[in-house]
Amino acid sequence: MARTGRRAGSSGSREAILAAARDRFAQEGYDGATVRGIAAAAGVDPALVRHYFGGKEQLFVAVLELPIDPAKIVPQLLAPGIDGLGERLAHFFLETWDRDDMPFVALLRSVTTNDRAAAMLREFISREVLGQIASSLKLPEPQLHAALAGSQLVGVALMRYVIRLEPIASMDRDELAKMIAPVIQRHLSPS
Amino acid sequence: MARTGRRAGSSGSREAILAAARDRFAQEGYDGATVRGIAAAAGVDPALVRHYFGGKEQLFVAVLELPIDPAKIVPQLLAPGIDGLGERLAHFFLETWDRDDMPFVALLRSVTTNDRAAAMLREFISREVLGQIASSLKLPEPQLHAALAGSQLVGVALMRYVIRLEPIASMDRDELAKMIAPVIQRHLSPS
Repeated sequence: MARTGRRAGSSGSREAILAAARDRFAQEGYDGATVRGIAAAAGVDPALVRHYFGGKEQLFVAVLELPIDPAKIVPQLLAPGIDGLGERLAHFFLETWDRDDMPFVALLRSVTTNDRAAAMLREFISREVLGQIASSLKLPEPQLHAALAGSQLVGVALMRYVIRLEPIASMDRDELAKMIAPVIQRHLSPS
Repeated sequence: MARTGRRAGSSGSREAILAAARDRFAQEGYDGATVRGIAAAAGVDPALVRHYFGGKEQLFVAVLELPIDPAKIVPQLLAPGIDGLGERLAHFFLETWDRDDMPFVALLRSVTTNDRAAAMLREFISREVLGQIASSLKLPEPQLHAALAGSQLVGVALMRYVIRLEPIASMDRDELAKMIAPVIQRHLSPS
């Protein structure tokens, strides 16, 4: 989008910011994009971006149209400690993706068809989700253990929502969470 | 493809059979398609299909251009029994997908963009891979346990080959197999 001078906060500004963010995240990745650069591309003041969205992380959540914000949720899941973390993650993850408005298939489609989308999502997950979990683990390679726990979660999501493999696709959410919780716990705190 | 009468085994027949199989699997799914129907669509005798490919399962492997045939490999992995099965599956799975000629991203792309591709792959995996594993498990819900083991494997593949999340993307294959083997074993023989 061409820079057309700073706009006052109008009803169009929010949309312009989102469009600029979509473009900047796709071009520069999650790590590379900045609120300042997005504001410039949208022709608005960075303060307006912060006013509408908060920061880069929330802007990314808005661009992906995620109905939840990992940066808010993950700390709540971590707060009670490592004990039971596998269960809390399994329940929360399935509860979230079972929602009709979660764009799991769309996300995965863009990741498999577009290297830049894959990079953008990878950086976001690494930093805002797994990075937070890793920082709570007292293990030699916390990022690896968090990533392995994540691999079990996305694998179940792939089976349940995309491949739709039975019985995983139709089974009761709590039953499924109960089956994967011990395995996730094992990834996070191997004995 | 219009039916043009039975052809003798010519160099074009193999290609015609593959094209017909691709079409029939896409239209009728893996379970619904038959060697007889594929032969008819290709305008050849079913015996010629069996001569070139063996049976439906091998035909499907040829259509997907998989360099390995699960129907041959899975029994070998199962033969030594449940003990160590998690390790054998983890090693074999990563060894296979680490090959340059494995179309994991392409497969996943077609699954996320095409419901019929998803159904076709689901039926194939269910019957020829997880079904075989399930039949070797002495558990109340063997298909569920095989599917959960499968979910951990595809989740790691998604992280390693598609999202390319570190450290899973670049780490040594044997190290990675060692990390997921106990978790797969736990899915297959929960204590």
